[in-house]
Amino acid sequence: MVRFDRIAIVGVGLIGGSLALAARRQGVFGHITGIGRHTGSLEKAKSLGVIDHYSLDLLEGVKNAQLVVVATPVGVIVPLIEKMLPSLSSGTIITDVGSVKAPILELLDRLPLSGARFVGGHPIAGTENSGVEAAFPDLFKGRKCVLTPSTRTDPAALAAIHDLWNEVGAEVITMDGQTHDFIFGAVSHLPHVLAFGLVNFLNDLKEVEGDLAKYSGGGLKDFTRIAASDPVMWRDIALSNRSNLLTLIDGYLKAIQDLRDLISQEDSPRLLESIQKSRTIRRTLIG
Amino acid sequence: MVRFDRIAIVGVGLIGGSLALAARRQGVFGHITGIGRHTGSLEKAKSLGVIDHYSLDLLEGVKNAQLVVVATPVGVIVPLIEKMLPSLSSGTIITDVGSVKAPILELLDRLPLSGARFVGGHPIAGTENSGVEAAFPDLFKGRKCVLTPSTRTDPAALAAIHDLWNEVGAEVITMDGQTHDFIFGAVSHLPHVLAFGLVNFLNDLKEVEGDLAKYSGGGLKDFTRIAASDPVMWRDIALSNRSNLLTLIDGYLKAIQDLRDLISQEDSPRLLESIQKSRTIRRTLIG
Repeated sequence: MVRFDRIAIVGVGLIGGSLALAARRQGVFGHITGIGRHTGSLEKAKSLGVIDHYSLDLLEGVKNAQLVVVATPVGVIVPLIEKMLPSLSSGTIITDVGSVKAPILELLDRLPLSGARFVGGHPIAGTENSGVEAAFPDLFKGRKCVLTPSTRTDPAALAAIHDLWNEVGAEVITMDGQTHDFIFGAVSHLPHVLAFGLVNFLNDLKEVEGDLAKYSGGGLKDFTRIAASDPVMWRDIALSNRSNLLTLIDGYLKAIQDLRDLISQEDSPRLLESIQKSRTIRRTLIG
Repeated sequence: MVRFDRIAIVGVGLIGGSLALAARRQGVFGHITGIGRHTGSLEKAKSLGVIDHYSLDLLEGVKNAQLVVVATPVGVIVPLIEKMLPSLSSGTIITDVGSVKAPILELLDRLPLSGARFVGGHPIAGTENSGVEAAFPDLFKGRKCVLTPSTRTDPAALAAIHDLWNEVGAEVITMDGQTHDFIFGAVSHLPHVLAFGLVNFLNDLKEVEGDLAKYSGGGLKDFTRIAASDPVMWRDIALSNRSNLLTLIDGYLKAIQDLRDLISQEDSPRLLESIQKSRTIRRTLIG
């Protein structure tokens, strides 16, 4: 079984906190140091038993760690890794949980990791809540975790991170970073952008202004649940996966324009066919 | 308390069946005749205790009814009412549960109702399942039901239908048909069209083709739940509320285009602001 005696988690929120709770329960994690910018949330993490110790100083916090988990918004992952490098022991494994992978891998390829070994990861898990208060050890149970090894990835480090995610209940799948970013751009980042846009659009209509909650029975709650996700996290994802997302938004706008045309032309047979197809596909998602 | 001794329900599916179960439980409905086109589902409705009797013949089925509930897809409501008129007793109340109201009211205004009294209704309730097997008496509990009286609506008939929905647990609100159609075009019909379009768009991407279920963890299931709704019902809604829906789709496309521009221009502050606004609004929906 994989085992890390000294772990540093940078960003002890929903994902970082849940991984700490889960891996400790499985006996995979020993002493956990939490690193962040605010004493308040780190104190809370400590009192909840998520971490053993905390530090506001990145260089001090990662010292002697065998494993560093970077669980921050995507936009600061590479700058944080760059900053921590001088303090890492040789052989330290660094992993992340960012929702966008290719840009991180490309930037890290240009850094002298000097003995540290990076493995890119993305657990497909989350709730509309964020922060360490929302963390729970079963968050990853039965969920997928994507690892995105490149030719530079150390096989032993990859195997260790693979085992870690397996131990906390996730099904690990591997793919290259670019494939990952397109697929999750499509099935996750695009729907989030559409939900953000819809909630704002509806709220700005003078007919419903301020009354959205009053009329949200007809499926709107389900549809827009993801619009309550963490804003900084999602801003970073949208900007980091910009190129895929723009392509996907354009394709989606075209698809809606086509549906609009069917409605406008009162093309009843083709409109019905399109809705029927959607229902069939959707039912396979429910399982 | 309102009480109907003889009721005819045209279209005994999720909504018609649930209303029958709920109103009977409350002692509001006496003898219920189900009317439909297929013996199979009417037999099932009878064996489930939803109706007492059924008929495949509309004119025979509505004879002597004090109340006729038309719970069919929107597109056939007016033709069915037109067809049943010769068989109705004077004073019969007709109500419907259609999701679009103004076109129905306009068409009925041109019919000689000769003593029958129409009250337009729209219970804001439903699940992604359809058919009488999915019916249950608590479907309307705590949900809203919109009634859309016009100047032609008989006040006593309106009061009776108001009481009926109250008795089955719904909170009744009234508004004119055009306001109803714009608001529910925005909060219900538009999100459905967007979900239909998204599911089809994603499924047609070669990178995810056939594998959508594999990657649907990141919020996609919630977002697309409504895409599994009944196709004929939704085709009819889209076509009946066409004019509002086209206006709303155009507004939404513009809103997404604006978000696309913020991403494309890497306008981080305004993108964050937009996502934050969306989260704040969405949180008021969760309550």
